[in-house]
Amino acid sequence: MKLRLGMIGGGPGAFIGAIHRHAAALDGLYELSAGAFSSKAEKSRAMGELLGLPAERVYESYQELINQERARPAAERVQVISIVTPNHLHFAPAKLALESGFHVILDKPMTFSLAEAHELARVAAASGRRLCLTHTYTGYPMVKEARQLIAEGAIGSIRKVYVEYPQGWLSGPVESESQQAAWRTDPARSGAAGAMGDIGTHAFNLLEYVTGLRVERLCADLRAVVPGRRLDDDGAVLLQLSGGASGVLTATQVAAGEENNFRLRVYGERGGLDWQHAEANTLLVKWPDRPAEIRRAGTGYVGSFARHNARTPAGHPEGYLEAFANIYRNFALTLQAELAGQTPTPEALDFPGVAEGIRGMAFIETVVASSQSAQKWTDFRV
Amino acid sequence: MKLRLGMIGGGPGAFIGAIHRHAAALDGLYELSAGAFSSKAEKSRAMGELLGLPAERVYESYQELINQERARPAAERVQVISIVTPNHLHFAPAKLALESGFHVILDKPMTFSLAEAHELARVAAASGRRLCLTHTYTGYPMVKEARQLIAEGAIGSIRKVYVEYPQGWLSGPVESESQQAAWRTDPARSGAAGAMGDIGTHAFNLLEYVTGLRVERLCADLRAVVPGRRLDDDGAVLLQLSGGASGVLTATQVAAGEENNFRLRVYGERGGLDWQHAEANTLLVKWPDRPAEIRRAGTGYVGSFARHNARTPAGHPEGYLEAFANIYRNFALTLQAELAGQTPTPEALDFPGVAEGIRGMAFIETVVASSQSAQKWTDFRV
Amino acid sequence: MKLRLGMIGGGPGAFIGAIHRHAAALDGLYELSAGAFSSKAEKSRAMGELLGLPAERVYESYQELINQERARPAAERVQVISIVTPNHLHFAPAKLALESGFHVILDKPMTFSLAEAHELARVAAASGRRLCLTHTYTGYPMVKEARQLIAEGAIGSIRKVYVEYPQGWLSGPVESESQQAAWRTDPARSGAAGAMGDIGTHAFNLLEYVTGLRVERLCADLRAVVPGRRLDDDGAVLLQLSGGASGVLTATQVAAGEENNFRLRVYGERGGLDWQHAEANTLLVKWPDRPAEIRRAGTGYVGSFARHNARTPAGHPEGYLEAFANIYRNFALTLQAELAGQTPTPEALDFPGVAEGIRGMAFIETVVASSQSAQKWTDFRV
Amino acid sequence: MKLRLGMIGGGPGAFIGAIHRHAAALDGLYELSAGAFSSKAEKSRAMGELLGLPAERVYESYQELINQERARPAAERVQVISIVTPNHLHFAPAKLALESGFHVILDKPMTFSLAEAHELARVAAASGRRLCLTHTYTGYPMVKEARQLIAEGAIGSIRKVYVEYPQGWLSGPVESESQQAAWRTDPARSGAAGAMGDIGTHAFNLLEYVTGLRVERLCADLRAVVPGRRLDDDGAVLLQLSGGASGVLTATQVAAGEENNFRLRVYGERGGLDWQHAEANTLLVKWPDRPAEIRRAGTGYVGSFARHNARTPAGHPEGYLEAFANIYRNFALTLQAELAGQTPTPEALDFPGVAEGIRGMAFIETVVASSQSAQKWTDFRV
Repeated sequence: MKLRLGMIGGGPGAFIGAIHRHAAALDGLYELSAGAFSSKAEKSRAMGELLGLPAERVYESYQELINQERARPAAERVQVISIVTPNHLHFAPAKLALESGFHVILDKPMTFSLAEAHELARVAAASGRRLCLTHTYTGYPMVKEARQLIAEGAIGSIRKVYVEYPQGWLSGPVESESQQAAWRTDPARSGAAGAMGDIGTHAFNLLEYVTGLRVERLCADLRAVVPGRRLDDDGAVLLQLSGGASGVLTATQVAAGEENNFRLRVYGERGGLDWQHAEANTLLVKWPDRPAEIRRAGTGYVGSFARHNARTPAGHPEGYLEAFANIYRNFALTLQAELAGQTPTPEALDFPGVAEGIRGMAFIETVVASSQSAQKWTDFRV
Repeated sequence: MKLRLGMIGGGPGAFIGAIHRHAAALDGLYELSAGAFSSKAEKSRAMGELLGLPAERVYESYQELINQERARPAAERVQVISIVTPNHLHFAPAKLALESGFHVILDKPMTFSLAEAHELARVAAASGRRLCLTHTYTGYPMVKEARQLIAEGAIGSIRKVYVEYPQGWLSGPVESESQQAAWRTDPARSGAAGAMGDIGTHAFNLLEYVTGLRVERLCADLRAVVPGRRLDDDGAVLLQLSGGASGVLTATQVAAGEENNFRLRVYGERGGLDWQHAEANTLLVKWPDRPAEIRRAGTGYVGSFARHNARTPAGHPEGYLEAFANIYRNFALTLQAELAGQTPTPEALDFPGVAEGIRGMAFIETVVASSQSAQKWTDFRV
Repeated sequence: MKLRLGMIGGGPGAFIGAIHRHAAALDGLYELSAGAFSSKAEKSRAMGELLGLPAERVYESYQELINQERARPAAERVQVISIVTPNHLHFAPAKLALESGFHVILDKPMTFSLAEAHELARVAAASGRRLCLTHTYTGYPMVKEARQLIAEGAIGSIRKVYVEYPQGWLSGPVESESQQAAWRTDPARSGAAGAMGDIGTHAFNLLEYVTGLRVERLCADLRAVVPGRRLDDDGAVLLQLSGGASGVLTATQVAAGEENNFRLRVYGERGGLDWQHAEANTLLVKWPDRPAEIRRAGTGYVGSFARHNARTPAGHPEGYLEAFANIYRNFALTLQAELAGQTPTPEALDFPGVAEGIRGMAFIETVVASSQSAQKWTDFRV
Repeated sequence: MKLRLGMIGGGPGAFIGAIHRHAAALDGLYELSAGAFSSKAEKSRAMGELLGLPAERVYESYQELINQERARPAAERVQVISIVTPNHLHFAPAKLALESGFHVILDKPMTFSLAEAHELARVAAASGRRLCLTHTYTGYPMVKEARQLIAEGAIGSIRKVYVEYPQGWLSGPVESESQQAAWRTDPARSGAAGAMGDIGTHAFNLLEYVTGLRVERLCADLRAVVPGRRLDDDGAVLLQLSGGASGVLTATQVAAGEENNFRLRVYGERGGLDWQHAEANTLLVKWPDRPAEIRRAGTGYVGSFARHNARTPAGHPEGYLEAFANIYRNFALTLQAELAGQTPTPEALDFPGVAEGIRGMAFIETVVASSQSAQKWTDFRV
C-alpha cells in the first residue's frame, strides 16, 4: 500500500516543493494526502486545490497539519511528512513531527545551525521515527556505483579528491526579483552561509558519501562577490581528509553562464573516478595503464546499488527527478519493510539521514570560521 | 481531479508497461484505477496487488476490463485506457475501448498492419474519443525546440536530414532468453518488420515531427543479420522528402555495444540542428558563419513548447521518463480542458495520435516493399 | 640524409599545397629543393622566394621541373615529387615524373578518370618507382589502431559499417568567390563527381582501409543541392561489402554549419568501434557486456601501428598535419630503407598508393553510374 | 631566409628536445644547423648524425657550441640557440648565449631559482638579444582567442578563475625507470618545486596570460604523495588576483589515469570562458541569458590572434606541436622583422619571454613558502 504523505511548504512558485512532489509520485509509493503549503492560508488552499486534495486536509500552518493529522484515525492519517521550507523553518516542524510520531523527510541543509542539528538528532533518536535528508545527488545510480567501486577497493586507497559545484544564477543582484534568490541570500532565513550552505553542503556530502573519507581540517576562502550581498556567493576550500588524502572543494553561484554541473573526481593509488551531473548516467573510470572505461547506468555490469536505483535499461537517460525519487523510494522501502516487521535491505537503507545532516551543518560552521581566520588550517569540529 | 486510468498489458517483467506507469504517475495527473495486466489471470492479479489496486478492478482480459469498467458509475469508472501489449494486440482492445467510450493511450506502432491502422482511424473518428500514440522521443523538450526553430524558419528551407537509431541488444540470438526480444523478432506478434517496426518507426516519426516534411519516396535495404532471425534487425533507407529535401534513415539492433543513442540532424539553407538522445537536454544549432550554439532545456531563452515540457531549471537533467510523461501530461491537459468545455492550448495538443499512427504503419509497409524490390525508389503509400 | 623534394602546384592561396609542405617539414625527413608552384611564372617565382628556394630551382611548368631536375647531378636533384594540383592535372605530371625516375606523392583522388588511374598504375609498375597517395585520414594513429584491432579479430566478423563525411562550406554558391570551391565544382577540373570525389573518396578509402573489406555493390543517390551547381555537393550510398556486411556512406558539402567531422563506425559480432575526426586522438571501443573503452593515442597499450604514428605522449593532441605528416614520414622511411638496400618495415609500408587510387576512381565512377540508374544495386567495377 | 638554429640538450630519449625540433621544423622558418645534444660526446654525436648535421657542427658541450659558432662567419653561424636541458642547466648556457650575441629560446621554467631569473633578465636586457620562453599552452589559437575576448571586455570584469592541470604519470615511483621522471623529482636538477615547477608554472602562466590579471597573494598546500618522493607531486593553491578577483590553481602528477588535460575557466560579470587541452581547438563561451557558444579555431569569426596562429581551416584539428610551433614561429617572425629593420606586428610579438620567466620563478618560490607557512595568505613577491 502507498505511504500517506503530508507536505509542509511547497506553495505556489516554490522550486523544491514541486520537485519533492514529482519525486514522491514517480514510483507510486506515496499518496500525497495532506499539506500546509504556505503560511498564507490562501496560498496553501490554492495549492491544495491544484493538487486535488480535499479541503479538510489542507492546513494553514505546520502545527495545524501535525496536530490535526495526529488526531485522525491511524488508517487515514499521514505517515510521513516532507518539510520543504527555507532553512530557518526546518527545525521546529521537524521536531514537532518526530515527536508527534511521524517519519520525516527534510530538505537539506538539515537545520539553521549546528546546535539545532544536534538537538534534532536527539529528538529523532528518542522518537523512534526515521528522518531522511534529501541530498539529491547521492541518489544517482552512477554516484552509487562510484561509492561501491571505491568501497570494493577498485582504485586503491584514495589520495586526492576534487569536488566542484559551479552555478551562475546569482551572478547578478537577482534577490530583488526572485523568491528563490531572496531567501538564499538572507542570513535570517538561510543561516551562516549562502552558497556554501545551499550547494557547498551537497558537495561536501557527496565527497564523504562516495569516498567514505571524513574531512578533518580545512582552509576556506568565502566571498560575497556581488556588491551588497550579505552571504557568500562563492567559495573555495582546501581539505585534509582521513587516511592522509587531500582535496579541493569549490562552490560558486556567480560563475556566469554555468547551470548546475556538479562534479566529483577521486584519485586513488590505482585509478581515478570522474562523475559529473551534466552526464549523470555515466561514470568514467580511468586507469594508468589501460583504456578508461565508460560505465553506464542501466547496464548489466554495474554493482547492486547502481542497479537498484535505475528504472530503465542503458541508453534511456534518467535525471534529477529520478535521483530525487530514489531517495524517496529507498526511504519508502525502508519504512514499508519495517512496517511489515522486516529488516530493510542495504540498498533500501541507502538514504541520507541525521548523521549526514549533522556533518553538513558542521561543514557550514567550519568553513565560515575558517574563512574568517588568518590561520591556514581549521579543525573540522562536529 | 486526476484522470482515472486503466491499463491493458504491462504484467510482470514487461518493460514498456512499467514505463507507462511511471509516466502516468510523475505529474500526478492520473490515478491508476484498473488493469488487465496479463492474459494469465494469476499474473494480472499479482501485478494488481503489487500496485495496490483493489481486487475487483483487476481483470483477466481486456474485454473484461472494458466491459466491466463501462458498467461502473461514471464518477468511478476509468476514463482513459493505456494499451501496452505487443503489436498484434493493439488493434482489438483499442477498437473496443474507443467504441466503448474510453479515451485511449496506445504504444507504438499503432497496429499490426496499415489496414488495421486505417480501420482504427475510422473507429476513433466515429467514437468522438481521443487516441494518443506514445512516440516517446517527441516528448523531449529539445526535440520540440528543434521543431519550433524549424517552423519559425531559423535554418531556412530544409535540404538534408539524417536520422539514426542504433541499438545493440539484439546482436546475439537472445530471443530464446528474453521475453522482450522474443515478441519483437516474431512476425506473428511484431508484424511485417522487426527493427524497422520497433525503432525505425520512432526515427521516421521524429523526422516528420521535427521537420514538418513528409517522406515521399524511399529506397530501403533491410537485413536479418543474426542467423535464424525471421525479421529485419538492421536497415538503412534513403529518403526523398517533400520540398525537394532528401534524407537517410538507419535503424539497427545489431550495432554491438550501442545502447539507444537515437540522433537527428537537420540541415537547412542557413544552418543545422543536431539532437541526440544521449544528451537529450541539449540541442546544438550550427551556423556557417558564427559559433555553434548549445541550446539547453530549462533555460529562459527556449521557445514555448520546450518551456512547457520541462519541469526543472537548466542543469537539472530530465530524461526518458520525463519525455514519456510529457506525452501523458499533454494528453491529460487536453482531456481536462475538453472535460471543462475549454479549448486545449497548442502546447497541450502537442501529442502524437492517429495521423502519426497511420504514417508509421505506412512506413513499415513501404520499407518492407522497397527492400524486396529491385527498383531503387518506391513511392510512400498511405 | 633528408630526401630532396620537388613540388608541382601549391602556389599562393592553395590550401593543400601548404598542407603538404607542413607535412613534409614536420619530421625533418624532406628538404624542399625545387618547385613548379603555378602555371603562372610570376606566381611560381613568388612562392619560391617566399620558401627561400634558389631561383634556378623554381620552374614555370611541371615539364620544366621534371626535365631540368633530371638533368641535375644525382646528389643534388630531387628524389621525390609532390603533385598537389587540381584533379585534372594529376595524371600527366605523375606519369612524366615516374617515367623520369622520380618517386611521386600525389594528392587524391589519383586521377581524373578510372581509365587514367589504370594507365598510371601501369606506368608506375613499369617505372620501378613508388607512388604515394595522400589519403590523409589513414594517417591518424587511432585509425590505425582501429584497423589493427579489426585485423586481430577484436570485434569479430564485421556486420555493419557507417561512414559519414559532413561539411558545410559549399552551402552557398561560393564558387564565384573561392578558388578552392571553383575547381572542385567544375566538371572540367574535378572530374565526374564533386563531393563524392573530394571527400566521398576519403570516406570510401577509410572504410576499406580500416575494415579490410571491399565494396561489392552499391546504391547511390547524388544530388546537386545548391542551384546552378554542376556536380554533386551531397550524396548517400548504401553499400554491400565483402563477407556479407553492409554499410552506409554519406558525404555532403551542404550541411550548413558542419566543419569536417569525418566519422567511421564499425560493428562486428562482438563489439563496435567509433572514430571521429573531431576527437581524432580517441577511439571508442564498445562492448555489449562491459564498459566501453576510450583508447587514446600516445598511450602504452595501443598497437604497433598506432604507436609508430604518434610523436607525443597521451594527452598531447596530434592533429591533421601530424596525420598528413605520417604519410610523408612512412613514405620517406620506405624510400630510405630501400635506398639503403633494406626491406621497409610493415609500419613504414603503411601508406596509400596505386591500389587505393584505382579503387577510389572506381568508387567515383560507380556512384555516378548508380545515381543515374533506376536499379537499386550497381556492381562495383574496377 | 630560414633562421639558423643551434640546440643545447635534446639528446636521445629526451622528450622535450624532440618537441622543440618538430616545432622549429613545422613552418620551415628555422634550419637546425648545430647542436650540443648531450654532455656525453658519444650521445651528442649520435643525435647529430641522426639529424643529418655535419660532424663539425655537433659539439660536446654548450660552451663549445657557443664559442665555436661565434667564431664562424656571420652568414653561417647559428642565430638562435634553443636550450632544452633540465632546469638546473638553463641559466648558465642561456647567459653565455645571450652574452655571446645569440638569441635564445629557453624551455620553462626559466631558471633554477628566482635569483637566477633576475640575473638572466639583466643579462638579456644588456645583450640586446631576445629571449623566448616556451610556455607551450599560450600558443594555442583558442587560448589566444580567450585572451583577446577578455581584453575586449566580452565577459566584463573578472571575478573567478579556475585553472587545473592534472596528470597521472607520476602516480607510481617511476623515477627509477624513467629519465623524464628522474630529473623532475630531483631537487638538485628540478629546483624548489616538483609538480608546481613542471606544470604548475604552466597553469600560473596561462592564468596570467589569458586574464591579464596578476596573482597578488596565495595560499598553497603542496604534497609529496608518493612515498619517498622529495619534491611535491601534487598541490592546490587559493589565489587572490588583481582587481579583486580570486582563483583556484591545482596541479598534480598523481591523478592516476589522467593524461594532460590542462583546463582554464574564467568567469566575469557577464559571462564565462572554458578552454581545455583535450579539446584544444574549441573555446566555450557561456552566457547567463543566451545559449553557450562553441568558438572554433580556423573559423572566419575568431579574432586576429587566433587567426594568426592557425594553419588549417576549421575542422582540421591542430594540436600540441602546432601550439609549440606557434611560439617558434612568432619568435622567428619577430626576429626576421627586426633583422629587416621593421617593427614586428603585435601578433608576432605575442610569445612569452623574460617577464613571464621571472613571474614563473616567483610563483615557484611563493607557493613553496606558502605551503610551509601556517598563515593562510602569503604575498606574491617578485
